[in-house]
This record gives sequence, C-alpha cells and structure tokens, in this order.
Amino acid sequence: MDSIKVYLEKNKERFLAELRELLKIPSISADPAYKSDMLKTAEAVKENLLDAGCDLAEVCNTPGHPVVYAEKIIDKTLPTVLVYGHYDVQPPDPLDLWDSPPFEPVIKETKIHPEGAIFARGACDDKGQMFMHVKALEYMTQNDELPCNVKFMIEGEEEVGSEHLEWFIKEYKDRLTNDVILISDTGMIAKDVPSITTGLRGLSYLEVEVTGANRDLHSGLYGGAVANPLNVLSKMIASLTDENNHITIPGFYDKVENLSDEERKKMAEAPFDLEEYKEKLDIDDVYGEKGYSTLERGSIRPTLDVNGMWGGYIGEGAKTVLPSKAFAKISMRLVPDQDWKEITELFKKHFESIAPKGVRVEVKPHHGGYPYVTPIDTIGYLAASKAYEETFGKTPIPQRSGGSIPIVSLFEKELKSKIILMGFGLDTDAIHSPNENFGVWNYLKGIETIPWFYKYFTEMSRNN
Amino acid sequence: MDSIKVYLEKNKERFLAELRELLKIPSISADPAYKSDMLKTAEAVKENLLDAGCDLAEVCNTPGHPVVYAEKIIDKTLPTVLVYGHYDVQPPDPLDLWDSPPFEPVIKETKIHPEGAIFARGACDDKGQMFMHVKALEYMTQNDELPCNVKFMIEGEEEVGSEHLEWFIKEYKDRLTNDVILISDTGMIAKDVPSITTGLRGLSYLEVEVTGANRDLHSGLYGGAVANPLNVLSKMIASLTDENNHITIPGFYDKVENLSDEERKKMAEAPFDLEEYKEKLDIDDVYGEKGYSTLERGSIRPTLDVNGMWGGYIGEGAKTVLPSKAFAKISMRLVPDQDWKEITELFKKHFESIAPKGVRVEVKPHHGGYPYVTPIDTIGYLAASKAYEETFGKTPIPQRSGGSIPIVSLFEKELKSKIILMGFGLDTDAIHSPNENFGVWNYLKGIETIPWFYKYFTEMSRNN
Repeated sequence: MDSIKVYLEKNKERFLAELRELLKIPSISADPAYKSDMLKTAEAVKENLLDAGCDLAEVCNTPGHPVVYAEKIIDKTLPTVLVYGHYDVQPPDPLDLWDSPPFEPVIKETKIHPEGAIFARGACDDKGQMFMHVKALEYMTQNDELPCNVKFMIEGEEEVGSEHLEWFIKEYKDRLTNDVILISDTGMIAKDVPSITTGLRGLSYLEVEVTGANRDLHSGLYGGAVANPLNVLSKMIASLTDENNHITIPGFYDKVENLSDEERKKMAEAPFDLEEYKEKLDIDDVYGEKGYSTLERGSIRPTLDVNGMWGGYIGEGAKTVLPSKAFAKISMRLVPDQDWKEITELFKKHFESIAPKGVRVEVKPHHGGYPYVTPIDTIGYLAASKAYEETFGKTPIPQRSGGSIPIVSLFEKELKSKIILMGFGLDTDAIHSPNENFGVWNYLKGIETIPWFYKYFTEMSRNN
Repeated sequence: MDSIKVYLEKNKERFLAELRELLKIPSISADPAYKSDMLKTAEAVKENLLDAGCDLAEVCNTPGHPVVYAEKIIDKTLPTVLVYGHYDVQPPDPLDLWDSPPFEPVIKETKIHPEGAIFARGACDDKGQMFMHVKALEYMTQNDELPCNVKFMIEGEEEVGSEHLEWFIKEYKDRLTNDVILISDTGMIAKDVPSITTGLRGLSYLEVEVTGANRDLHSGLYGGAVANPLNVLSKMIASLTDENNHITIPGFYDKVENLSDEERKKMAEAPFDLEEYKEKLDIDDVYGEKGYSTLERGSIRPTLDVNGMWGGYIGEGAKTVLPSKAFAKISMRLVPDQDWKEITELFKKHFESIAPKGVRVEVKPHHGGYPYVTPIDTIGYLAASKAYEETFGKTPIPQRSGGSIPIVSLFEKELKSKIILMGFGLDTDAIHSPNENFGVWNYLKGIETIPWFYKYFTEMSRNN
C-alpha cells in the first residue's frame, strides 16, 4: 500500500487540476438562478466517478437537485463502504471580501499552508473533501488495491438542509445497502493533530417576519406612536437570550444531554489555545453561555444565532422611514437529545407569544436536522483510527464538532449502519466565508489516508 | 381677489400638467447617482419661477446640491415674503410596493380624493406644495394682485439634512432679508379641518456599525462561542427603550419641555379618531411611550426609531453564517428644548458604553436639526389664519407636527424673522412611502389660499 505515496507524487498536479475544474462551476443550491450549474456539476461528478473506476454512475433526479449515485461491486460477499458527500456549495457573498473570485480557483501559499492552498467556494466544503474519495478510489482501482465494494451518494442539497435526500434514500434503499458510511465533510484539530469527528450538532433554521403598519411611514409623523418592526424585532430577538446568554425559549433545554464532569474534563484536554483563537479572529474576548468553555460552547451546547436581518432603508445616505416590515433568518444548533422538529415548534410558539400588540409576526420554518453522536468502539471507528496512524504517525483524537450534517442521523435510522466522519479540513479554511480554501497538503493527505481505511475496515470485518 | 377662483378654473389643467413635468425628474438627493437629475430639476424650478413673473432667478451652486434663488421686488418700502421649499425627494424604494412608477405621475381618484390625487414621489413632499407658491405668484403677477415683494429659496438637500443650507444663508444673507418666511412642507388635519403647524420636532440621525470577528464565520463551528454582531446589535437597540418605551439614554430627557395640563388638554381637543387611525394603518393597536396619547407621542414627545438595519445573509434561501458586521440607521425626533448636537453626543457616548466585550462599535453621526415652536400672536400667523378663513370658511387649528424641517430654527436665528408653516397635505399622502400622492383639491386649495396670505400680511404690516 506504500505505493500510494508514489502514485500521489506522480499524479498530484492532475489531482489538483481536476479539482479546480469542479470548483469552477458555481453550484449554489440556495439560489434557483444556478439550477443549470447544479446539473452541470452533477454530470461532472458522475464522469469523474466513472473515470475513477466505477462500473456504474448516474445522475438521479429527485424532487429537488439531483443526487449522483455510483458503485463498484467487486464481490457481493465482501463488505461495502458507502461514501457520502455533496457537490453543492454555500452562496459566496459578500463577494467584495474575496481576494480572488470564488469560482476562479487559485493556489496560494499561506502561513498555515506553505505547500499552498486552493482558494474557491467549495474548495473544502465539500467538493475538495468529496473529491479525495474519488481520487482514492482511482488509486485503488488502478493499483488493484480495492479490497471491498464501494458505493457513492453525492447530493446537491446539503447546504440547504438536504430537503429531498430522505426521499432519495427511501426510493433507492435497496441499492444503498452498506456496512459503513464514510463522510469527509468535517475538520481536524490541526495538521499535526489528526482527529475523528464523533459528534455533530443538529439544526433548526427559520425565517421570521414582523409587520407593523400596512405601508412604510414617515418616521416624523408616526414615529413614537406606531410600532416600528425593526425596534420590535430587535427587542424580540434580544429577549431570546438572557444576561448569561442562556436561551429563554421555554422547554429549549429539556432534552439537552448533560455531559459528566469526567467527559468534560476529557474534552478540556484537547489542545486549544484561547489567545491564538482570539488573535486569529481579531476579537478582544470570546462571547457565549455562562458556565461553559469556548470548546464546550461550540460543540456540546445548543446555540441561537441570527444569520441575517434586514428591514427599512439600507441604501446610501439617510431615509427617515418607519418601515412596514422587518425580517430575520435565525438558526439554532442543537445537541443530543434535542429533536429539531420539536425545537422548531417551541421557537414558533414562543416567538409568536412574545409579539407585542401593534405588530403581526410570521415564523417560517426553513429546514433542520438531528444531532448525532457515534461510539468509538466500532470497527468503522477503529479502522479509521488505524488509517490515520499509518499516515499521520499518531492516534487521532475523537472530537465533537459544532457543525451539522442534518442527514447523518437519518442515515443511521434508514440504512442501519454507522457513520465515520473522516475530516481533513482546518477551522482556518473559512468554509461558508469569503476566501474559503483547502490546503493542498490536507487534500493529498486525505487521498493517502482513505485507502488505508478500506484496507483495515475490510480486514476487521473479516475477523469479526 | 375672488378672481383667483376664476383663474384657477381656467388654468387648473395646465397647473397640473406643469407639476407633473417637475415630478418626472428623479431628484433623489440621498443618492449620488442622481446628481444630474438634481441639476435638471433645479433648472426647471428656475424656469418656472421666471415664467411666474420673477424679475430674477438663478441656480446657485453650493458645496452640495444647488439652491434656486428668485425674487420679484416691486417696492423696497413694502414688506417682503421669503418662500422656502425643496425640490429634492426621498428615495422611492421599496419600488415593488408602488402601484405606478414613482417618477411617472398619474392622477387617480381615491376615497379621500374623489377629485383625484397625483401619485408620484415628491407629489406632496415637497414639489407639489412648493409649486403651489409658484402658481400663486403667477396668479398675483398676471392679475396685478401682488401686494408686496417676494423671494424664493428652493433647496435640494432637505431630505438629507439641508447640510449646506446654513452655508448658503450666510453667503446670501443680504439678498435673503425678509419680513416673514412662508413654508408649505407640512400637513393639515383634514380637508375640512384646516390647521397651521406651530411646532416641528428636531432630529438626530446616526448610523451604527457593530463588528465581531474579522470575517464571516460558520455558525456551526463558531456559533455560541463568538459574539454575533446581529444578536448583539439587537440587544443594544432593545436596551435603548425600556418596558414603557421610555428612552434609556442618560440625560436624554433633561431638556424636554413639559407641557402644562392646560396645554395638553387643549391638544386633546383636536379632532382625532383612534379607531380610524388604526384602521387606516391596519394595526390592531398603537404602540408608544406610556402615559401619553397617540397625538402627544407623535408631536410633543421625542422618539427613537430604527430606520434601517442589515447584516448577514439576506438573500434567497438559507446560509448558516455568523456575520462579521451588523449595521443600523437610527434617528431620534427631538422636541423643545433638546439640542440635537448634544443628543447626538449623548447617544454616541451611551451606545459605545453598552457594547459588550467581543465586539467593536462605531457610531457615525449623520445629520440633525433643532426643534421649533412658533407663537400664534404674530402678524404672520394671524394673516395665515385669515387666509384660511377666506378659502376654508373656518378658523385653522394651531397644531404641533411630529415631522422635522431641520432648517427652520436656523432661519429664525440667521434671518431674524418668523416662519409660517402653511401646509396643505394630509397624513394619508404617504410621503416618504410608496404611492406618495397629493390631492388635486389640496393642490388647488393651496394656490387659492396663498394670495390671501400676501394680502393680509401686507395690510397688517402697514397697520403695524
């Protein structure tokens, strides 16, 4: 298997060039204007999977954006790895903050990546990480190193809540049978500190609309006498968290899993430099729920964030208007064992109940997903751990992530197998932000590590 | 003077056509993109003033948008009326809420205006009301009814705080000498309830910017651990008013003039139908400072309104971003004897002081103006009152308006004369809102009433 190093050295320029081609297509799932680019991207992924050695690959239509399904079955008696990833990306705005156009990938050296990093929307999340699996498969098929069967399910709606993936999984259940699900859509602690994500937060995403008068009004003639939706919405949002940044929605914490002091002590051992964290973000202090560390606030505790807010006059100069409407996009990150559908209902009920007279409030649930935690004693986890040991020379740390992959818990429920989250990104990759990037070193390290997982997972399954 | 009725009947179609021409030019002072339209409008006003009989009219450059100055001096020993108005308009957005394009004036019948109303941005505020004075002058010069001297000062920056008018007044002081300043930039209570505005609120307009991390962040990886500028700005804005909608800025009320119970009782006598008010705005209740009536909240009490707020992802669909910045445009309406410069400082100091650690706050003062109250025993007021009696058949009610004409108090200070606010608009004219309109009846009634003011003001000045 050491031939992987040689193969990588020989092909890395092509591996980078092929990824850049994929990154050039603006597959923004949130914006209907990019529908044809979504299709184009799905087709490109399909072609890449066939080139990598799949016997079969197709773009499967869904009620939403298509899913790319592919497989290579070498022996029905051998175990099967199902690789999940997504080809859609977050909207790139604010565009003016990008140093280079988001869909014109460039490789630049950075402090963290002296070997260079690919800058483009989706470089890490998730085109780059998904493509590592395509190239790892190419290596295994080209070098007769594929020890088991493999299936791919690459969707196009992860950034908008995987709305139709449940439909797809139920529709394609028979073809999706597998022994383990492998996903690279998370990060690791540092280049020299490999980690495996063992937990993900759930999500509830909503949009709220506050309406006052039936038209925009003159703030002089009506100001002070008629409810201002922006003032009111600010008060309503402010009231959703108390002075300790504890969320005030009744029942919100009822099902939150409380970790033992033991578990919290273990978490605290993970390498983390608060001063460096603040310096990287250029903030004078962190900000969050009282009684919890920054690592805990970002992983084992639920949150409530306004992701967008707008209303009134937001153009150049001044306009003394008392707006008719105010809007906000609000999302809550959830932890075990919060039920996102239940939390969405609790939010809706509470938010409507705190609306003062003089305004009308509408809460539109957007999408959501369940939190997920995986045990570390499964064959899948152990195979992944050994794979990292081969390529990083050290045992990876199990780590809970604050992010969400809404669909993960569904996989377990519907496909009855464990999910292994082998992420190779860094928290400096600026995913969902301007100047998203993915280290060339990380990209190649991922391609190098994945085949080892296949090897050990197949061996361990045999001995099981 | 009864010939005015005949003259109006004969010329009203032309009066309407000429106003429509003026309304077609998008003179949006707040937006630099309309600079040339501002010039075009100033030129058009100048031409109209010459056509109306002025001996002299010119477009005077200022460090900002030009001021149109014109005059007709018939006898230096006679009193001089200085007419002030503005040719700039508010931005028309949100455009999608207009039933017809804001700069394509149309006349439509409405419930309140069976004689029809002109729909266009600026129809009432202030092109329509300013143009009444131009047409009234035309009548007086054409029919040898001009009893005194008249000067016009029509500016282009009223909607953005009259930034350079002070400069202009000081520069042109000698030419602006007058005995009374006449302005139609306010409203009256109802078509059958004429009123003269005796008070205006002052204004302090600011923009605030809250900055968290140095870039937009992934709300999953950083949510709960890093300050979210939108959540923080909401909390800061919410804290600016207490549960009684009392403004919490220390010192804010120190100089607020408190009206006597006598004065408040007199105010309460003004005809006002709360149910009709709520119905027109389609609100289930009014909203404002505890302990004051709707009329009081909108006139004799200061206010704090968010005129615009934005941050994060405000596009289609969902984006789980933790924004780096959040913004708001905030204005305060002030009453005697609040000093807008002092209030602006108090706001800045207080707002910066309540910023939590983890964010940086910037407060940018925009513009402002002093409140104004005029006595009702001056020759100017009495002449206006008699003029309304002639054309409405009843004595007008003195009324305090909630609006602001930042420059009015400066006029008194610099030009040493009283200001008479003869407004013919209605609060249903939707100024600063989509579908702004001005009743044809009101437009013509204004043209009919103004010459009577000249007559009585000149007579009373002589007897003085």
